[in-house]
Amino acid sequence: MTNNLQKERAQQTLSVDSLNAFLDPDHKNTAAIYQQIINDPVLVTSKSYYDLTKPQLRELCAHKVKRLSSYIENESFEEFENRLSLLSVSDPAVATRVGINLALFCNAIKGNGTDDQIDYWLKERGTLKLRGIYGCFAMTELGHGSNVAGLETTATYNPERQTFTINTPNLAATKWWIGGAAHSSNHAAVYARLISGGKDYGVKVFVVQLRDSNFDLLPGVSIGDIGSKMGRDAIDNGWIQFNNVEIPREYMLQKFSTIDPDGTVNLTPLEQISYSALLQGRVSMVLDSHRHGARYITIALRYSIGREQFGEVGKETQLIDYTLHQYRLLPYLSLVYLLGPGSQKLMASYNRILNDLYAAKNIKKSITELKDLFVASASLKSTNTWLISQLIDEARQACGGHGYHAYSGLGRAFQDWSVQQTWEGDNNVLAINAGRSIIKYYQAAQKGKKIGEDFAYLGENLPADLDFSDLRSYITIWAAIIQKVAQHALKIYKGNWELVSQERLLLSKFHSNYYLLTAFLERIQSGELTGQEKEIAITIFKLYSLYFVDKFSGVFLQFNSFQPSKLGEIQTAIKGLFAQLRPHLVALTDAFKYPDEIINSSLGNFNGDFYNNYFGDIIQNYGKGDKAPYLDVLASMLGRPDQEERLFQSRTKDVLEKLGN
Amino acid sequence: MTNNLQKERAQQTLSVDSLNAFLDPDHKNTAAIYQQIINDPVLVTSKSYYDLTKPQLRELCAHKVKRLSSYIENESFEEFENRLSLLSVSDPAVATRVGINLALFCNAIKGNGTDDQIDYWLKERGTLKLRGIYGCFAMTELGHGSNVAGLETTATYNPERQTFTINTPNLAATKWWIGGAAHSSNHAAVYARLISGGKDYGVKVFVVQLRDSNFDLLPGVSIGDIGSKMGRDAIDNGWIQFNNVEIPREYMLQKFSTIDPDGTVNLTPLEQISYSALLQGRVSMVLDSHRHGARYITIALRYSIGREQFGEVGKETQLIDYTLHQYRLLPYLSLVYLLGPGSQKLMASYNRILNDLYAAKNIKKSITELKDLFVASASLKSTNTWLISQLIDEARQACGGHGYHAYSGLGRAFQDWSVQQTWEGDNNVLAINAGRSIIKYYQAAQKGKKIGEDFAYLGENLPADLDFSDLRSYITIWAAIIQKVAQHALKIYKGNWELVSQERLLLSKFHSNYYLLTAFLERIQSGELTGQEKEIAITIFKLYSLYFVDKFSGVFLQFNSFQPSKLGEIQTAIKGLFAQLRPHLVALTDAFKYPDEIINSSLGNFNGDFYNNYFGDIIQNYGKGDKAPYLDVLASMLGRPDQEERLFQSRTKDVLEKLGN
Repeated sequence: MTNNLQKERAQQTLSVDSLNAFLDPDHKNTAAIYQQIINDPVLVTSKSYYDLTKPQLRELCAHKVKRLSSYIENESFEEFENRLSLLSVSDPAVATRVGINLALFCNAIKGNGTDDQIDYWLKERGTLKLRGIYGCFAMTELGHGSNVAGLETTATYNPERQTFTINTPNLAATKWWIGGAAHSSNHAAVYARLISGGKDYGVKVFVVQLRDSNFDLLPGVSIGDIGSKMGRDAIDNGWIQFNNVEIPREYMLQKFSTIDPDGTVNLTPLEQISYSALLQGRVSMVLDSHRHGARYITIALRYSIGREQFGEVGKETQLIDYTLHQYRLLPYLSLVYLLGPGSQKLMASYNRILNDLYAAKNIKKSITELKDLFVASASLKSTNTWLISQLIDEARQACGGHGYHAYSGLGRAFQDWSVQQTWEGDNNVLAINAGRSIIKYYQAAQKGKKIGEDFAYLGENLPADLDFSDLRSYITIWAAIIQKVAQHALKIYKGNWELVSQERLLLSKFHSNYYLLTAFLERIQSGELTGQEKEIAITIFKLYSLYFVDKFSGVFLQFNSFQPSKLGEIQTAIKGLFAQLRPHLVALTDAFKYPDEIINSSLGNFNGDFYNNYFGDIIQNYGKGDKAPYLDVLASMLGRPDQEERLFQSRTKDVLEKLGN
Repeated sequence: MTNNLQKERAQQTLSVDSLNAFLDPDHKNTAAIYQQIINDPVLVTSKSYYDLTKPQLRELCAHKVKRLSSYIENESFEEFENRLSLLSVSDPAVATRVGINLALFCNAIKGNGTDDQIDYWLKERGTLKLRGIYGCFAMTELGHGSNVAGLETTATYNPERQTFTINTPNLAATKWWIGGAAHSSNHAAVYARLISGGKDYGVKVFVVQLRDSNFDLLPGVSIGDIGSKMGRDAIDNGWIQFNNVEIPREYMLQKFSTIDPDGTVNLTPLEQISYSALLQGRVSMVLDSHRHGARYITIALRYSIGREQFGEVGKETQLIDYTLHQYRLLPYLSLVYLLGPGSQKLMASYNRILNDLYAAKNIKKSITELKDLFVASASLKSTNTWLISQLIDEARQACGGHGYHAYSGLGRAFQDWSVQQTWEGDNNVLAINAGRSIIKYYQAAQKGKKIGEDFAYLGENLPADLDFSDLRSYITIWAAIIQKVAQHALKIYKGNWELVSQERLLLSKFHSNYYLLTAFLERIQSGELTGQEKEIAITIFKLYSLYFVDKFSGVFLQFNSFQPSKLGEIQTAIKGLFAQLRPHLVALTDAFKYPDEIINSSLGNFNGDFYNNYFGDIIQNYGKGDKAPYLDVLASMLGRPDQEERLFQSRTKDVLEKLGN
């Protein structure tokens, strides 16, 4: 059988190195880290990973966390975070299990603690080096997810002893989903209502020790395992209830609001900044969308290039040469490409704004920028975690029946990925919040007010229609439709935001498109790429825009962006772009430079020899011809005596005659 | 905390019994079977089911199959199939594991065997009563899924010994995914190329014994376990390779083509009928879409009625009162309702046509009807298994973080359901085949040719626009757009069907809408429902149509079905329909009458006390406060000596000075 992948690879003309450098400016470091991961005896992931049970996954994960603790000792926090992010591509649960402590717990302290508190809890106690303290982030409650202001756990101040008493007042206030709580954590950052002198001062953050150095629960602390989940079973999520747990006054994090020994509470409006701790997760998930998406689209495209179906044996058609198959996969390839520059731009904004904020140079400017970042990250996180979920599902289906096998990697990918739509801001909640802000920004812009750089387009006068020959037009068509939808929403909303939630959702999705297209075109025009690599990047850019215009064509036509007849032109143009991309698909996926161990799919190896790879993996892990351990169940069914005998011949005609009258 | 579900249930005015009888004409029998299942010590499913490992699931499944073998002895095949279908709602893998034998293996023999062959293999040997023979369906090969004509396994006739030699000529020809092959089956219906006198006569079906009565593999038969899958791990899928396995000439199924002792092969064109064996699965999956969809939408709606979020504590808003939440769930509720009558109509057609075919009254008419049934079932199977997959994903997200817990049941549901999109006809392949047929039917109708009843609308002269006040218009708008898309496809296809695969996909989806709406309106107008139950059914009917018109609005506007401004009216109308449905959601979901054990979700119990149910299930299965079995890994990490000590103090300044020069 022809190895189509290798045959096509030999014919590639694009420079894989140039594309890789474009997608990942840090590519040399990335390659080095991947090499370290795949050669590491503990950190590497193999096919048998897909066969592990929950207890096995959790134990393996603990070993990986321990292994990472030796890496963290010799690199900066940022370097380690990057290592974690790359590791997460092949094993997302490990990164989460560490991130619960290093990102969530530590960020809660960094964002809410005084310098002394940060110094003690994070440095002196070894936490940032994965020693001594292993923290968890006890925010969510059984009855309260997205609505932090509604949390019910209480921290009641006792002035006579200068302590707080932490309590779980009812079942719905049970801390829930707390990653690390079931087994790993000895401390928690607990979000609880500060009560002093009988007054409720709202939700603040408290450090509460959960377990002693022997891992025994402290008095009044009740904890249990949350158990099985749709995915990420390697994470030991737990629930926590507090019964009169007493902690010193000094354990309240007091960067913003403070409490005096006598119980006087000093509030500050600056506290809203503290929620910036949650931003990192959202921003990271956009980068995850790029990195994980690249893994899954590579599997599907390599398989679709290799696999043939229909036609005569030996002359069958490669799956990827079916138009519908291209329609199913190539727009997602363009999404993954756009997410490279897009996620990098967002991450750079985040780093700059947060640094300015912590440096407190121009606090007013920082707070304004922070708000814009909230909106942009909400739009990008929700839109793209949804799209990657669709990508995974489509990739699995594109691999036909074999996509359903655990070793395709795509089933587990979907299970693990799905949580991204819900955690650290439910996608629907984030999206409609972002949409409401966009409408408000639009209204402000129309009144001539100055708005943030990312949203300045809302005040521009733009052509609604698409000019195929003008690259900017592939972006402005989105800016213009956003204006029209925002305008429409303002017209029908009548003071009730609920009436325009569909429009708000659309605006959030459209802003993500605008943002990604803008970031991508900036990079194309920066001169990094030249020649045919630049040409192909432009093709990808156009495909992304046109595919989504076609997908949302009802909205464009509803608001008369262009004539209905133009849709046919757009659909024809999309097919033309497919034809331009088709010869380069091997190079475009090789450009991610993911080692086989990171892709970890029997269908997605670099060598393209997928039947042998797949069969080999299966033979290696499941052997041949073993009988079932429960064979007696089958044997006793198939060999059972007939019913009459089993019923003691008590229903035969002569018995019934005997019994009758 | 208020129990919103119970509070609202007390206010319901709809008759749950009437709606239940409308949705399920066999409702009395259904209720009796559910009662038997949930009281059966082996067949009932509980939350701990979600915690089972693959080996545990397989063993439990074998016990359930054995348990079912006692039920099958006292009922008809049709009754038993109905029992299986109902059981599948709570445990889909069990039904599949039995269905591999009773539906696929037995149908292969019924569809291809002579009366004597059917009598021997199915009755005399006990197969139909789950005794003696347990068969599997060995069609798919590693390299050949949808393309049956391309299978490579060979059955070469040896006239001197009057036997066939079965061979697997290469790795890609390995029988793959064969359900039951790994552990359970002792016989297989093997699809292989008949070779006689050196000539290839195409794919025929052969009965091949795989294992002896001691479950040992027969000579030349090599079998292995396929291993882990995305879902349905309880099914022991396997692979099979044949190395010169010899079987008697009589083991070829010879209802159609036959082979004489001297090797002369007698082919017949009627053989195409044999593929009708695969139809049952597709038709059943439309019924599954209704039954399973009802389970998942009930979970999401009950949770959304009970759960409150945002606003003040104690006065928070019920999730279902958010417009977006209604937009996310209520169209799927309408889908599930429409699938009731729709799937029943399809099943009735199937039974009638197959009975006529087997009775051979009017073979030509039967073959024509069979072709139409292929198209209708392909369109309905693909469209609705996709939609139910989206329903499950949306339902999970609508339950927020708790939807991600295994005990919501929705994660496993997605994993188990996903295979429906791929098996027994890949959805994309089925849909574009159906779409091509619809275009051809349209062309024929335009030429004045008579076409089958289900597609007669293609020749009618219909208004393109929607008249809100005319119920028929909610259907004809779909018929008219199908005509327009078919016409457009004919204009651009230029002899190459590949050029219109997107249009073919749309036509398949639109035909499903047309079919479901038609079947539903027929039942509404049959007089079964009266009063407000009839009114609410009409509301559901309208919502289904308008929701999908809005969803595919780009197509309607592209083909000028109505003015762009009408979309706003449609969107407003949809919100009005939501408002009409909102007060009745408890009754509309109670009307499915699923016992809690069938729903098997901590979030979806009838009593609506979901926090207590959920917490109780978790405490029961995971206990409180256990330490991790792998605690030493965590302890040795957190308590490790500092790096200098672990590196033997060999990197201190004075050591480096000693070593330097």
